[in-house]
Amino acid sequence: MPLTLSEVNRMTADEFVRALGRVFEHSPWIAERAFAARPFASVGALHAAMAEAVRRAQLMLPRAHPELAGKQAQAGTLTRDSTAEQAAAGLGALTPDELRRVAELNRRYREKFGFPFIIAVRRHSKDRIFRELERRLGLAPEAELANGLEQVFVITRLRLEGSIAE
Amino acid sequence: MPLTLSEVNRMTADEFVRALGRVFEHSPWIAERAFAARPFASVGALHAAMAEAVRRAQLMLPRAHPELAGKQAQAGTLTRDSTAEQAAAGLGALTPDELRRVAELNRRYREKFGFPFIIAVRRHSKDRIFRELERRLGLAPEAELANGLEQVFVITRLRLEGSIAE
Repeated sequence: MPLTLSEVNRMTADEFVRALGRVFEHSPWIAERAFAARPFASVGALHAAMAEAVRRAQLMLPRAHPELAGKQAQAGTLTRDSTAEQAAAGLGALTPDELRRVAELNRRYREKFGFPFIIAVRRHSKDRIFRELERRLGLAPEAELANGLEQVFVITRLRLEGSIAE
Repeated sequence: MPLTLSEVNRMTADEFVRALGRVFEHSPWIAERAFAARPFASVGALHAAMAEAVRRAQLMLPRAHPELAGKQAQAGTLTRDSTAEQAAAGLGALTPDELRRVAELNRRYREKFGFPFIIAVRRHSKDRIFRELERRLGLAPEAELANGLEQVFVITRLRLEGSIAE
């Protein structure tokens, strides 16, 4: 006695998770998050909403990073670490032309990959950062996600080394 | 006034997360999980513990899957879906030789990749499943993680299609 899609679309959150929380083994959080995307036009659309919940979880770490010279930098809402790092690389003093260029590259990058461009700015000059942004914009999504995560690990290693004496 | 490593090693969980929760942007859960690995012999060891917390989170989904014809299957502790799927592929009736062979392949696979071999068993015969397990055992870890996740999506799609009528 399978459920029907219209029954699924009428379920409360609790009923939905009870009925479908087991679809991904031992991972009811996926159904919990997919519930918000109701109503589902097809079983495929329901599965796509669950897959999107997984994808968002995978991108959580790179998505937590701010854009370089982006809105947060201009509004002064970067974390203390990011502020110091971006300033040290000269990103706090871009010309209006450079700001427009980086805003456009940031926009294209986020549109393509779903997370911001991440680079250990302390290790690179401003010009090198721009070149890397353009180069990595051309890479395949899987490869670039790996690059982004690798840079997160470089950045966090430098932060630890800068704040703890052995 | 940087911290010293011995100060870090003496911190309570709260102090540790307050001091280091910001190292990964907006992701204090990483420091929370790394705390259990104290004491740290070096800043590098501390960073490795944080990286391991991230890696575990990335592997959460494939790790939630059971082994094929593994301990859970033999103990009868598989989820209802997995039980039906493994039985349909003939994995519930392996010879003692086949059981030994799959146990050895499963062991090598998990040792290499850190998660169990995952395949949409409904789509494959027993022989084909064995061949795939041997083939994928030879792949690179990054590629195989992508394969494992892809199979999770095939399996869950089949489960949804089998339990909801449009």
